[in-house]
Amino acid sequence: MVDILHRVGVETDSPEKVYEALATIDGLAGWWTDDTKGRSEVGGVIEFRFPPGGFDMEVTELVPSKRVSWKVVDGPEEWVGTTVDWDLRQDGDYTIVMFKHGGWREPVEFMHHCSTKWATYLMSMKQLVETGAGAPSPRDVRVAYPD
Amino acid sequence: MVDILHRVGVETDSPEKVYEALATIDGLAGWWTDDTKGRSEVGGVIEFRFPPGGFDMEVTELVPSKRVSWKVVDGPEEWVGTTVDWDLRQDGDYTIVMFKHGGWREPVEFMHHCSTKWATYLMSMKQLVETGAGAPSPRDVRVAYPD
Repeated sequence: MVDILHRVGVETDSPEKVYEALATIDGLAGWWTDDTKGRSEVGGVIEFRFPPGGFDMEVTELVPSKRVSWKVVDGPEEWVGTTVDWDLRQDGDYTIVMFKHGGWREPVEFMHHCSTKWATYLMSMKQLVETGAGAPSPRDVRVAYPD
Repeated sequence: MVDILHRVGVETDSPEKVYEALATIDGLAGWWTDDTKGRSEVGGVIEFRFPPGGFDMEVTELVPSKRVSWKVVDGPEEWVGTTVDWDLRQDGDYTIVMFKHGGWREPVEFMHHCSTKWATYLMSMKQLVETGAGAPSPRDVRVAYPD
């Protein structure tokens, strides 16, 4: 098993806005993809759609201002069964976000791509909280060609 | 052992410019850090310096337009002994760059940070080749606070 790991520091005086960006449909649509639907509650499923396809995430844990966890229940074969965890803590003027997309079976080329792409989406989430505007799909940062 | 993996696609008609960005001191200074010195030849050491510190990399492999490999011989404790590999291949109008910073002993918080930071530097390298201007330190993209 191999994992994609990231960390960003979001300039904000409490973790509430970051939590909101991760735990609400409107928040998620503000940095990941415009086309986000579903129920962000434990046991609920969120549907994230992008021009090339998408992911369905079951929400497995929601701890306000602390933690958001999902399990991938539909999407690309490599993603199904993997987990995505977001852990938040406050450090002075920054909310520190620790990210893990865990449980990849093999470090395939697509995993390399997703690692870079996740970094750009974390930066989009950081921008959303800090400035009010992220770069969700289809206005996302391109790391390769149509991606 | 855990690895940081990334992949970008650089729009360019051959891998030569990407190789030059990775295998020459001027190229490296154009996207990673202004303060890059040393000898980019097998067995040579390249010194990368940033405001908070730096890394010394021994060049272990150089295959024109194909591969660049380094071994970290000095720097933060977590980095020493790790390896950095860049593999290039052409796919139509893009040079595909597969990146691996391998051999981390533990998935520590600093590794999470370095994973995100590497992604922003790979995007800086992509911009350098595509537009002629990257974002090397000290004009690098900040992913947290002084980083």
